[in-house]
Amino acid sequence: MNPSSTSLRVRLPALVLVLEVILLVLYSFFVTYDDNANAKMQNNMTLPMDNSLYRDYPYFADVQVMIFVGFGCLLAFLRFYGFSGMVFNFLTATFSIQWAILVQGYFQFYQDGKIHLAVINLINAEFACAVVLISFGAVLGKTSPVQLLVMAFLEVPFFSVTEWAVLKYIRVNDAGGSIVIHLFACYFGLGVTFVLYRPNLNNGHSKELTSYHSDILSVLGTLFLWVFWPSFNSSLTLKGDDQHRAVLHTFIGLSSSTMTAFALSAVFNKKGKLTMADIQNVTLAGGVTVGASVDMMISPAAAYALGVLGCTACFLGYRYLTPFLAQRLRIQDQCGIHNLHGLTGLISCTAGICAILLATEETYGPSMYEIFAHRSPPEGDPKLLALRQLIPGLKAGLGRSAEEQALYQVAAIFSTIAAATVGGVVTGFVLKLPCLASPADEDCFDDELFFHMPTDFYSEVKKTPINEHDSKV
Amino acid sequence: MNPSSTSLRVRLPALVLVLEVILLVLYSFFVTYDDNANAKMQNNMTLPMDNSLYRDYPYFADVQVMIFVGFGCLLAFLRFYGFSGMVFNFLTATFSIQWAILVQGYFQFYQDGKIHLAVINLINAEFACAVVLISFGAVLGKTSPVQLLVMAFLEVPFFSVTEWAVLKYIRVNDAGGSIVIHLFACYFGLGVTFVLYRPNLNNGHSKELTSYHSDILSVLGTLFLWVFWPSFNSSLTLKGDDQHRAVLHTFIGLSSSTMTAFALSAVFNKKGKLTMADIQNVTLAGGVTVGASVDMMISPAAAYALGVLGCTACFLGYRYLTPFLAQRLRIQDQCGIHNLHGLTGLISCTAGICAILLATEETYGPSMYEIFAHRSPPEGDPKLLALRQLIPGLKAGLGRSAEEQALYQVAAIFSTIAAATVGGVVTGFVLKLPCLASPADEDCFDDELFFHMPTDFYSEVKKTPINEHDSKV
Amino acid sequence: MNPSSTSLRVRLPALVLVLEVILLVLYSFFVTYDDNANAKMQNNMTLPMDNSLYRDYPYFADVQVMIFVGFGCLLAFLRFYGFSGMVFNFLTATFSIQWAILVQGYFQFYQDGKIHLAVINLINAEFACAVVLISFGAVLGKTSPVQLLVMAFLEVPFFSVTEWAVLKYIRVNDAGGSIVIHLFACYFGLGVTFVLYRPNLNNGHSKELTSYHSDILSVLGTLFLWVFWPSFNSSLTLKGDDQHRAVLHTFIGLSSSTMTAFALSAVFNKKGKLTMADIQNVTLAGGVTVGASVDMMISPAAAYALGVLGCTACFLGYRYLTPFLAQRLRIQDQCGIHNLHGLTGLISCTAGICAILLATEETYGPSMYEIFAHRSPPEGDPKLLALRQLIPGLKAGLGRSAEEQALYQVAAIFSTIAAATVGGVVTGFVLKLPCLASPADEDCFDDELFFHMPTDFYSEVKKTPINEHDSKV
Repeated sequence: MNPSSTSLRVRLPALVLVLEVILLVLYSFFVTYDDNANAKMQNNMTLPMDNSLYRDYPYFADVQVMIFVGFGCLLAFLRFYGFSGMVFNFLTATFSIQWAILVQGYFQFYQDGKIHLAVINLINAEFACAVVLISFGAVLGKTSPVQLLVMAFLEVPFFSVTEWAVLKYIRVNDAGGSIVIHLFACYFGLGVTFVLYRPNLNNGHSKELTSYHSDILSVLGTLFLWVFWPSFNSSLTLKGDDQHRAVLHTFIGLSSSTMTAFALSAVFNKKGKLTMADIQNVTLAGGVTVGASVDMMISPAAAYALGVLGCTACFLGYRYLTPFLAQRLRIQDQCGIHNLHGLTGLISCTAGICAILLATEETYGPSMYEIFAHRSPPEGDPKLLALRQLIPGLKAGLGRSAEEQALYQVAAIFSTIAAATVGGVVTGFVLKLPCLASPADEDCFDDELFFHMPTDFYSEVKKTPINEHDSKV
Repeated sequence: MNPSSTSLRVRLPALVLVLEVILLVLYSFFVTYDDNANAKMQNNMTLPMDNSLYRDYPYFADVQVMIFVGFGCLLAFLRFYGFSGMVFNFLTATFSIQWAILVQGYFQFYQDGKIHLAVINLINAEFACAVVLISFGAVLGKTSPVQLLVMAFLEVPFFSVTEWAVLKYIRVNDAGGSIVIHLFACYFGLGVTFVLYRPNLNNGHSKELTSYHSDILSVLGTLFLWVFWPSFNSSLTLKGDDQHRAVLHTFIGLSSSTMTAFALSAVFNKKGKLTMADIQNVTLAGGVTVGASVDMMISPAAAYALGVLGCTACFLGYRYLTPFLAQRLRIQDQCGIHNLHGLTGLISCTAGICAILLATEETYGPSMYEIFAHRSPPEGDPKLLALRQLIPGLKAGLGRSAEEQALYQVAAIFSTIAAATVGGVVTGFVLKLPCLASPADEDCFDDELFFHMPTDFYSEVKKTPINEHDSKV
Repeated sequence: MNPSSTSLRVRLPALVLVLEVILLVLYSFFVTYDDNANAKMQNNMTLPMDNSLYRDYPYFADVQVMIFVGFGCLLAFLRFYGFSGMVFNFLTATFSIQWAILVQGYFQFYQDGKIHLAVINLINAEFACAVVLISFGAVLGKTSPVQLLVMAFLEVPFFSVTEWAVLKYIRVNDAGGSIVIHLFACYFGLGVTFVLYRPNLNNGHSKELTSYHSDILSVLGTLFLWVFWPSFNSSLTLKGDDQHRAVLHTFIGLSSSTMTAFALSAVFNKKGKLTMADIQNVTLAGGVTVGASVDMMISPAAAYALGVLGCTACFLGYRYLTPFLAQRLRIQDQCGIHNLHGLTGLISCTAGICAILLATEETYGPSMYEIFAHRSPPEGDPKLLALRQLIPGLKAGLGRSAEEQALYQVAAIFSTIAAATVGGVVTGFVLKLPCLASPADEDCFDDELFFHMPTDFYSEVKKTPINEHDSKV
């Protein structure tokens, strides 16, 4: 174990050094402060408490807890891979956000030759980071930190271009990021793992186990994700009633999905017992499923139904689809991201399209043209003037009908899936480069490969005879 | 172990299905958006940043962490019952909040045939949920998830009716919920556990142990509860200086109670050592004890003294009263909720009554009639007009004197205790129904009964010979 | 083990009782409500939502999580000392904040014979508490809770006087507290540990080990500190763009320091593996390093560079300086606070001085005189009148030049270090008093000395033969 081919001693520092030089040079030349963070832009008209910081920072902080603590604990569910799950998540997330500030900043916050930095950029970058971490779930336990950094280095630009094209050209409604975040992350991850296929691991691996403590830690991660998911889904909506609905719908969707997950976990177990993997993952399905329509007037009951539906699809996916993908399609989806982000994402997109088709001025009042901004009349249209009487700052749109908007949503779904899959496959081939310290099959799911371990890891944790009543995850 | 009588395979899914159908139907017919979450109610006069979301959401999020992470970890203190403590808390909390949104909504947010939903409803529902979780503490380790859901299903309406009657008819001051939440939860839980009495467990149970890791996890839960308790106690006060005082008093009360808990823990141990169960529970007593007077001008020193007093009562309760209740009165209070919520709640109510009797315009200024709203003069009284010069929006009250208000507080205390006890006993009898998968005595405090366990649970965790130097909790 | 000389049975309760009486008496006579928390000060001109609570409470809550959960978990990294690390942190923090409210309040919030209490006092007191907890890191595992309370009792006044002298007389720019907090805490802690030198422990101790679970718990603490550090560094800046920059710089500095820590950890390990102690500590260096200039217009690239620089110094300090200090200078710095707070603090101060020297009106606009308040013209200066046209409420300053301000910063650094060292040495001698239950050398790093332990501590946790491949921390 740990032959020189997986030593991080040269590889990791060299890569980090290169990445840091790139980041530092780009920061130096291209990043400046947004007006809200620029001392020079303050004058006798600016009120300190109107600074955008106070609108954005609470949501940023909540999403930070999700990314670093929530994902970190959730990914530490394996018995011998807790260090790696938690710590590689830390490294990958840190780099992804920095890199996204630059790449995404170039597409979304670039003006006069500079990226203008404020907390809102960080929130956007955290969404890009969430994309990388979801994809990471597909290859957990089978990749070195060097590979993960390279994956983040490639995925962030793939994602940023796709996001920019979808939001700026196709122009969709996707407040919770079901299309842009969850579908992209899922199919990118599946593309990567398809290329990194390890036939020897298709029948399980002797270290692919959980432990009593790792299962509890992982549930703790789930709880942090659960608690702050309303902040995630609402952090990029319009302020006011839109954000309010996003919080309510996310909370309701998560609740119904949690109850459903417990029921399904019991009914599908021969002895009628609960399985911790279901509690850790399937409970969260509702948060994704309400995503695309989270700020719309779908009614609380619909949010409830979406949670039940998404949870059921996610659960059945874990049970039937994940083994099928691994056995037949060479797609080894370690954490089942296709269930928690792919299937639920597709249901969410469908629900979003229905909500768009059903949206009327009767339900939304004139603010329909704020929420569905692309349905707002174009500049010069007399209807725009009439609407501006009711909503002073209304922006001109494209005058799309509901049906047109629905078709654009469909186009966005398919092009996102296509872009993600291509990006994932390309990235997968890069990750196969021999210098990236990919672990051998027998060293997967083992902290020892990349960490200096405390002595009890050998004497206590790992001494358990492994083959007794196998509790494969 | 795990005979078919406790299999969840049919029971849990069937119950969840019924509950979900009830919830979904009621949501469909009776729940709509509050104006703050309704797109149609926005017009050119509504300012997005004035949305009630921004006043309520930070407190909602803090209480969410308390409910799901704080309670979840705290209840995972048993060595073989960590999964159950954490995960049944998750399930019970999720259902309780959904159910309270409907039941409590009917009493408090019902207008024109609909419950109007905003984040403030969720905060109220979280308080109802806290009630259920406190009661759960009395029967931890001895109940199936089916029983817990049924308990929540019954307790939420009992609580909502009591809360509504106390707040709307008796009309009390109880910002931190000492009467309505802590006393109700405590006596309801004692009622339930009285009926579910298990004589064989009165001399302890071989699995009623903690472990090194479960004790640390439980302290982590305590710390989250401790940190966010000021948000809990202040989330339903008036905005402004009232909420400010509630934060200060809660923080001071918790601090003095923490220091006292350490001192008492050492002095009552023969070897002068600290006991983790005290750190986990008794430190929190101050948060409850300041509850009823938390928004009043009691002075920081009084908050300090209340913390010391409540902590001492709580500690002595654990030491002397809990064993007495179990041996003599057939009341097996597993987590000692009578100490942490009952005794401290009673002290808190007494302190609240004193604060009411001592309140004068000299101390409070005219805003006394806002804090003690029922002492405000009734509509038509010339004093009301005079006061409205000083406080423009002052609401008409009942013109109660301090002494009258104090008597109403006493009435509220006794009627809450009575209602809770009756409700608890009734619920206890329902929970005895044989179909609810109640665990046999020997299967209590054991995750194995309801969970598919990782292999190390058998080979490592449980192999410890259990009878050596017994560390009964 | 645990002879009567370290029993807490009399010592701890007696000390707590004395401290509580002192606190209660001082609270009774000297603490009243700030206007924002005083019902009497509300009138028909006060708007509840303008209460200072809403500006300060979110930052207070974030810092609370850092202090109680973040530090608590981080300090629980030892295999047999998890209870003590987490729980002594809880006790020490609780007392320190209460004590600082009084002592610091006397220097900073004293008016008309009373300390006026609001949430802003609590934030300041939490900073004093952070000072005590950092110093605690130097003597972790080697001190009784009685000693820790005495240390807090002495350190808070030493700190408060120094802080007051530096802020009011020398008048420095130090938004993140690099001088006042980190340098003071570090050199005070080193002073204490110098006096408490234990020659027998210089070659390590058989219980100075981590475990698989304690390492993960400690990383969890690191993650909470990491996530909320921007709130810490920004909580006492000016509101508006200053606070906005403080958040951005802290986040960027932490990110670059995290990436660097991973690289250095791998390159300095012979087998190219990562060491958890580096991930737990060195990743955080960037948060300290950006401190002194965190609200200035240093540019995002400079924050990035500072993170890399601070992390490198911190890492090398752990590797070379800590052993040198212990072997040659009798300074046993258990958690390496000199690396994480001393070296980084010095770099931070240097960077702050550079930023002061480089600050021009061209970069900052007129608000330069707000950020560098002491460079604002003195009362009566015609330039002040001109500036007040641009910034209405600008306060008169001392009319210092950049160079003068830089010299004052240098003076503050040296006098803080001197005061801290003297205070630490004095405190160290007090802690040697025999009645303070100092543990014997062989009982260090062992929870058993001060806690009633669960049985698995003996049968499972401690049975590991300790001398096998020694993984000294």
